[in-house]
Amino acid sequence: MSNIRTDLALEASEVLLGKEKSADGVTVESEENEGVIVTKVDITNEKGSELMGKPIGSYITIEAQGLRENSPQLQKNVTLILSEKLKELAGPEKHKKFLVVGLGNWNVTPDALGPKVVSKILVTRHILNSFPDEVKNSVGDVSAISPGVLGITGIETSEIIKGVVEKTKPQAVIAIDALAARSVSRVNSTIQISDTGINPGSGVGNSRMPLNKETLGATVIAIGVPTVVDAATLVNDTLENVLSSMAEKSGGSGEIFKCIKTLMEEDKFEDIFNALEPYSGNMFVTPKEVDSTIERLSDIIGNAINITLHPAIDIDDVKNYSF
Amino acid sequence: MSNIRTDLALEASEVLLGKEKSADGVTVESEENEGVIVTKVDITNEKGSELMGKPIGSYITIEAQGLRENSPQLQKNVTLILSEKLKELAGPEKHKKFLVVGLGNWNVTPDALGPKVVSKILVTRHILNSFPDEVKNSVGDVSAISPGVLGITGIETSEIIKGVVEKTKPQAVIAIDALAARSVSRVNSTIQISDTGINPGSGVGNSRMPLNKETLGATVIAIGVPTVVDAATLVNDTLENVLSSMAEKSGGSGEIFKCIKTLMEEDKFEDIFNALEPYSGNMFVTPKEVDSTIERLSDIIGNAINITLHPAIDIDDVKNYSF
Amino acid sequence: MSNIRTDLALEASEVLLGKEKSADGVTVESEENEGVIVTKVDITNEKGSELMGKPIGSYITIEAQGLRENSPQLQKNVTLILSEKLKELAGPEKHKKFLVVGLGNWNVTPDALGPKVVSKILVTRHILNSFPDEVKNSVGDVSAISPGVLGITGIETSEIIKGVVEKTKPQAVIAIDALAARSVSRVNSTIQISDTGINPGSGVGNSRMPLNKETLGATVIAIGVPTVVDAATLVNDTLENVLSSMAEKSGGSGEIFKCIKTLMEEDKFEDIFNALEPYSGNMFVTPKEVDSTIERLSDIIGNAINITLHPAIDIDDVKNYSF
Amino acid sequence: MSNIRTDLALEASEVLLGKEKSADGVTVESEENEGVIVTKVDITNEKGSELMGKPIGSYITIEAQGLRENSPQLQKNVTLILSEKLKELAGPEKHKKFLVVGLGNWNVTPDALGPKVVSKILVTRHILNSFPDEVKNSVGDVSAISPGVLGITGIETSEIIKGVVEKTKPQAVIAIDALAARSVSRVNSTIQISDTGINPGSGVGNSRMPLNKETLGATVIAIGVPTVVDAATLVNDTLENVLSSMAEKSGGSGEIFKCIKTLMEEDKFEDIFNALEPYSGNMFVTPKEVDSTIERLSDIIGNAINITLHPAIDIDDVKNYSF
Repeated sequence: MSNIRTDLALEASEVLLGKEKSADGVTVESEENEGVIVTKVDITNEKGSELMGKPIGSYITIEAQGLRENSPQLQKNVTLILSEKLKELAGPEKHKKFLVVGLGNWNVTPDALGPKVVSKILVTRHILNSFPDEVKNSVGDVSAISPGVLGITGIETSEIIKGVVEKTKPQAVIAIDALAARSVSRVNSTIQISDTGINPGSGVGNSRMPLNKETLGATVIAIGVPTVVDAATLVNDTLENVLSSMAEKSGGSGEIFKCIKTLMEEDKFEDIFNALEPYSGNMFVTPKEVDSTIERLSDIIGNAINITLHPAIDIDDVKNYSF
Repeated sequence: MSNIRTDLALEASEVLLGKEKSADGVTVESEENEGVIVTKVDITNEKGSELMGKPIGSYITIEAQGLRENSPQLQKNVTLILSEKLKELAGPEKHKKFLVVGLGNWNVTPDALGPKVVSKILVTRHILNSFPDEVKNSVGDVSAISPGVLGITGIETSEIIKGVVEKTKPQAVIAIDALAARSVSRVNSTIQISDTGINPGSGVGNSRMPLNKETLGATVIAIGVPTVVDAATLVNDTLENVLSSMAEKSGGSGEIFKCIKTLMEEDKFEDIFNALEPYSGNMFVTPKEVDSTIERLSDIIGNAINITLHPAIDIDDVKNYSF
Repeated sequence: MSNIRTDLALEASEVLLGKEKSADGVTVESEENEGVIVTKVDITNEKGSELMGKPIGSYITIEAQGLRENSPQLQKNVTLILSEKLKELAGPEKHKKFLVVGLGNWNVTPDALGPKVVSKILVTRHILNSFPDEVKNSVGDVSAISPGVLGITGIETSEIIKGVVEKTKPQAVIAIDALAARSVSRVNSTIQISDTGINPGSGVGNSRMPLNKETLGATVIAIGVPTVVDAATLVNDTLENVLSSMAEKSGGSGEIFKCIKTLMEEDKFEDIFNALEPYSGNMFVTPKEVDSTIERLSDIIGNAINITLHPAIDIDDVKNYSF
Repeated sequence: MSNIRTDLALEASEVLLGKEKSADGVTVESEENEGVIVTKVDITNEKGSELMGKPIGSYITIEAQGLRENSPQLQKNVTLILSEKLKELAGPEKHKKFLVVGLGNWNVTPDALGPKVVSKILVTRHILNSFPDEVKNSVGDVSAISPGVLGITGIETSEIIKGVVEKTKPQAVIAIDALAARSVSRVNSTIQISDTGINPGSGVGNSRMPLNKETLGATVIAIGVPTVVDAATLVNDTLENVLSSMAEKSGGSGEIFKCIKTLMEEDKFEDIFNALEPYSGNMFVTPKEVDSTIERLSDIIGNAINITLHPAIDIDDVKNYSF
């Protein structure tokens, strides 16, 4: 049904629901506060799932254009909001043992977000028993791993994770992944959290086996940030916008309209892929500052996870515990 | 005159000369051999310079689509061709003392080509006197520096280079820079060498003072590889192709043709920049494998420079001398 | 019995056997060829195992002082010798499915050898089925992983490996680890291979569960290179040498001899640890060029593994397949 | 006169002055506050300079064993103290234009301190004119460069710096360098600032031309941190301690005493260098956590420089301006 190439439920809802905020099985709610927009897309039944091309569950998006710049106050706000949403989905009231998984390829800058977050996680599983009892109650049992990608290991990412989960038996897995957005304006400005896990074909991790409660036996929270737009998608979307605006100006009928419609169907994709050859499937669009932006985003996500899983630590002293 | 945003003389000639291979002050010659196309664009007078938007001089382009893949045999061929062309422009018959300069920002992967090449140069200036005489004749006097970019140092790149040139007095400067291409097919598949130096606004180094014989008092050979396409340029070019093909189909006249012409003039750029906002001037398109490709290209250019400046070393043992 | 702090069976044999080349349960054989010394220590029974403080099995050491310099011809020789020894212990005649494991901490340069080797392994497990049959017979089924260390993941290295082994069922595991030597002259000049796996307390990986046939259900080949000497060991050994030489000069009796003996027992360690405080257990001695040497050693080991597991590939074209 | 191999004036004074706090031409004053010891060694005349083996001038040492751990509060204190001392020696009341120079080799972790500090400096020289007047008064004119080392560039570090100084005409140069300590306890726990510049043979930068007011025409402030101890120095010092304690115990006379004296003179160095061969001049002792410690120290020094040169920025918001 849906051929919208986006990993963001929010973008899918924008395209598919238009200005409506709901459909059968889909509701969208959002609020804005000091430059941060938090949107919750709930997919509540099979029909909604089919329409949106995503599993039933909650998808929370935290958006702030300011994330692209170095704005420590905004970073702190977003960290706190992310922590609050994480707590709702998988907080330490519900779970006690966590495995944080950094999906993606550490050799490709925009795909290295997950491994970078993992490098900032305060792992405690191996030292928890040495803590005094009063500390133990306010520090989570946390381990963390970056399994790499299939091309690097020769092993399905999901096999590695399943192996580790079976050995270490976490109650919740928090998986971080770099995503592809459809719109350039969402790149590096948006964080999506969901309780539906990671699904085949979505994200960059590309595990063919889904990572979710059924496959792993643990709740799977996915945190994703779109760090690129596929180059062909960008060109295609821009073309569509231009041609649609032409069609609109033509009055929605007559020769021009017909001609545009015809061209939109026939030639566009070919022309685009000609322009993008020989790299077509493999080109991405990314901002120049991608290296420093990924660093900043991994700080936000790492800190949010640390203060959520370790209630003893708050945002002002989280840095004191870092590596 | 020319508003073609490309650093490649070859691309400028394609756009400006069309299928003609010459104009007043510009000649283009090319030959192909085992998958490698070598093209020489000569700009011979002021008129040609104005038409092309580039200084009078020779621009040699070495193109091989295979450079994007890991093909050691092709890499060896391209290294030898590049060395031969370098020898023509600034060989050790003409010069004895060389400074290799790696332009660009080492923190931004596609801009790090120059610094990466410099890290592979066999510098000898400081030890040449300790060599026996028979070695001295077949080893060049080579030093190397990566001056960084203005945003990192607060100093014009050209000021740093001029300072070093005044102290070390090389006869030729070889400057390596990452470029922007207009066409995706040229990204990471093309090496341009010219004897005209580096000029303001061109390249990523962005020095406002040109680096050439006049400003430095030494011959300046520029080696550049396009590693990105500006995202706005890509979208714009693709749109133009699509709309031109629409205009053509419309028979070059009538309502459709007029409408397209109108739209092409008025709306296109706005729509594009809307799509690309808020990153407009700052988004680039690059292949996923950019990290490993830059590594490979810096090997080719570094080896070519090493075997050219040090006649004692040949391509089969150049690796033996590397860091 | 043995409190020799060295990971090298060869060093243990030197200290424990002295100039003898054998003891009950231990034989040592060595041969030299073009600057490369290959020594085989066989521990054949429980008594030998107890004496040496190492499990029953074969330990092959390849030593070449030239490994510390950039000498491509020597590197090639050592690569071929290592491949031959690997073939003896775990060649493709015996096994068909391999998992290569890079032990150690990628954030600490001298401990990063294992992860660096893994980054150079040609993994095929995920694409083997797409190869034509004639290729399949000369290409191994290879996967690879760097599990990190306990302080980074919170998970015992052996748990991660066991999880992956259970999912992927290799017949042999090849584990690469950075070791500690006792003698400075062995640092970065020695490669040890053994078929006894990795054992608690030995190596830097520090897994408490041994990695061997019993625990993993697969043959475990360990490849190790000493990249550091513990600072306290170095100082201690040097002191012992000096004091022994004093004792010897004193004629092995009388007041001086007694005094030295007394001092050797009582004060030495304290003095050393005073000198090394406050870093005592945590200081290591390493050569300045450690970064580039680790790079070179990981090339040798990675290439040796690649040409051993993939018979279709030989040493002259192994680079053609690299990442 | 002095053959004390240490870059720290404080260590030289300890060895040469013993428990005395002064000599002709040398005064030593120190105070301790919350775990931070600040010592000022003033060399006031030629005699003191000869005794100490260092130029006339002030050498301030800030020592805190806690710097080796991740202790944000201590880091903040040390940053403030360092800033205060910098202000005394080269504050913005005295100078308006600064060049920050990061000496050392970025490829060798313990030598990379200088380049790492430079990467954190807020450079303003290129944008100062675009600031409103009220900002200009509280922001310094700052540029920054890491010139590399002779083995990388083929150019004397001092030539590059002199070239840049002539072009950019700073009033003060702040040069950061990694040093060698004599005592393990000073490694990564001590910061030395002096107004005497950088002198041949001292430091790791190893420029043969001194960097000082005379050679550069600008005040030169040197900031150094010992990040290694030379391995031979460590072994030698430990031996000396052990043997001295033996001599002392022997009552300072008799056979034992004579024997020790003899051995100390004759054999020690040989034995040490035997133990350290074949790396003798090239081995260093460093703590395992050197990578993360260098990161932390470069934060402290970078922040101290930023808040000193830019009065508008204070320590609590300095991070807001970082890259």
